[in-house]
Amino acid sequence: MAKKVLIVYAHQSSSSFNAAAKNIAVEVLTAQGCTVEVSDLYAMGFKATATAEDIKGDLKDAENFSYLEESKLAWEQGRLSDDITKEQSKLTEADLVIFQFPMYWFSVPGILKGWFDRVLTNGFAFSQKKPYGLETFKDKKVMLSVTTGSPESMFCTIGINGDINVTLWPLQNGILHYCGFQLLSPEVFWAPALAAAEDRKKMLESWRTRLQGLLEEEPLSFTPLYCFDK
Amino acid sequence: MAKKVLIVYAHQSSSSFNAAAKNIAVEVLTAQGCTVEVSDLYAMGFKATATAEDIKGDLKDAENFSYLEESKLAWEQGRLSDDITKEQSKLTEADLVIFQFPMYWFSVPGILKGWFDRVLTNGFAFSQKKPYGLETFKDKKVMLSVTTGSPESMFCTIGINGDINVTLWPLQNGILHYCGFQLLSPEVFWAPALAAAEDRKKMLESWRTRLQGLLEEEPLSFTPLYCFDK
Ligand SMILES: Cc1cc2nc3c(=O)[nH]c(=O)nc-3n(C[C@H](O)[C@H](O)[C@H](O)COP(=O)(O)OP(=O)(O)OC[C@H]3O[C@@H](n4cnc5c(N)ncnc54)[C@H](O)[C@@H]3O)c2cc1C
Ligand SMILES: Cc1cc2nc3c(=O)[nH]c(=O)nc-3n(C[C@H](O)[C@H](O)[C@H](O)COP(=O)(O)OP(=O)(O)OC[C@H]3O[C@@H](n4cnc5c(N)ncnc54)[C@H](O)[C@@H]3O)c2cc1C
Ligand SMILES: [Zn+2]
Ligand SMILES: [Zn+2]
Repeated sequence: MAKKVLIVYAHQSSSSFNAAAKNIAVEVLTAQGCTVEVSDLYAMGFKATATAEDIKGDLKDAENFSYLEESKLAWEQGRLSDDITKEQSKLTEADLVIFQFPMYWFSVPGILKGWFDRVLTNGFAFSQKKPYGLETFKDKKVMLSVTTGSPESMFCTIGINGDINVTLWPLQNGILHYCGFQLLSPEVFWAPALAAAEDRKKMLESWRTRLQGLLEEEPLSFTPLYCFDK
Repeated sequence: MAKKVLIVYAHQSSSSFNAAAKNIAVEVLTAQGCTVEVSDLYAMGFKATATAEDIKGDLKDAENFSYLEESKLAWEQGRLSDDITKEQSKLTEADLVIFQFPMYWFSVPGILKGWFDRVLTNGFAFSQKKPYGLETFKDKKVMLSVTTGSPESMFCTIGINGDINVTLWPLQNGILHYCGFQLLSPEVFWAPALAAAEDRKKMLESWRTRLQGLLEEEPLSFTPLYCFDK
């Protein structure tokens, strides 16, 4: 069956290394018969702040504005702003979601953080009553594809940055696993700006190779909720 | 000597628990003779995305726009946008910086992530040549003051969210320690929305008490760079 892919892409420049990685993903996955959609956040001028403007019509409690509550209600009643609704439709359609971004401050750039804050709405993407347990996204695969400025040696267990898996934990566990996606292991492009031209080429070639088998990869496993006390 | 305090505050509503925590900090620290400045990010409509608009005048390389390089150059030449320069001046003045925010997706809200991305400019706040080693902020104390939606039990070492210190690692080590601040231990307000009214009151009282001695607190210690191999 033809798969649908969403690439959420956060780089300002179409000649960046991130753009190259994104373009290769579009090319390889399209060649495999996938339908690929790209959310190019900077090009879209994507709003990165969670505000009352994200909600159409009257607020339930404008005096004590709670984004968590108001956005949940607006989602239930179809009153979220159009830019959010559009991203949510893309997400609903997708079998695979790839986040392509440069690491900014041990995390995603603000524009992509805003996408997470605004698109993964309470009720739509998670349930506070069922943390890690909403089944909406259970058949969707998701992965981070990230470039760094620091070399790999700074991100190992004994490096000063700490293990890269610790740095990615809030994103991978806190957001993606919490929302019930199946996580594929991250693709980390180490310090392309410091690499020799041929090494950059190799990184992109190995990404191309990985993409060819990506849809068959087994997801990472997390300790399920029932193993934890309440 | 009278101290200067900067509170970077990220909540939409002036009747929120976050607002209460921020107001108490202003009150207690002012009473101690400090000059307290608040950057109220939503009220300021703070821009959360790192774009070419942050730079005045010509770009060095518009074709291959690199935020890391262009913002560094603009900082050196005094060509950063006024909103960034203003925040940088506040930071330069401050002896103590408190970040007051609700946890959004195991991290800061997009608007505060944008503040980190845009204000902590390459050259001003860190040096790639001296990671963790720029001395500009070495006499400044900094702390996170964060509210959660999840109860503490989900954030312990054996809880499904993992240890709160892991979740805060990218912020505390990756951003604040990297920029050479002295970190005070974080203030975590566990799930105020789930708490009974009297427990919320107690949380704020204990914050008030802590604030009274905050300027005398010893900073957290991190393993220094020279302990790591290159
Ligand atoms: C606010 C901010 C915070 C940051 N925080 C961190 C952090 O916490 N940790 C960290 O490690 N880094 C950090 N960085 C650095 C950042 O992660 C890197 O600058 C970024 O990942 C580099 O990716 P890029 O796509 O921008 O690279 P580019 O600079 O676009 O590209 C790197 C090189 O690849 C070349 N290239 C482009 N296309 C191709 C192609 N098709 N084939 C071969 N080569 C190509 C380019 O010409 C260039 O020489 C931060 C940067 C900023 C701006
Ligand atoms: C996009 C998004 C992502 C999120 N991600 C996470 C996450 O990863 N992990 C997590 O744990 N949570 C998460 N949350 C939940 C969020 O952290 C909480 O909703 C937030 O921390 C609550 O703080 P608040 O200031 O908004 O509380 P409020 O809702 O404003 O206040 C809580 C209670 O305190 C009362 N109060 C206000 N002022 C006072 C006062 N002076 N004295 C006594 N009581 C007072 C209020 O009336 C209310 O009853 C997320 C929320 C959103 C919107
Ligand atoms: Zn699970
Ligand atoms: Zn140090």
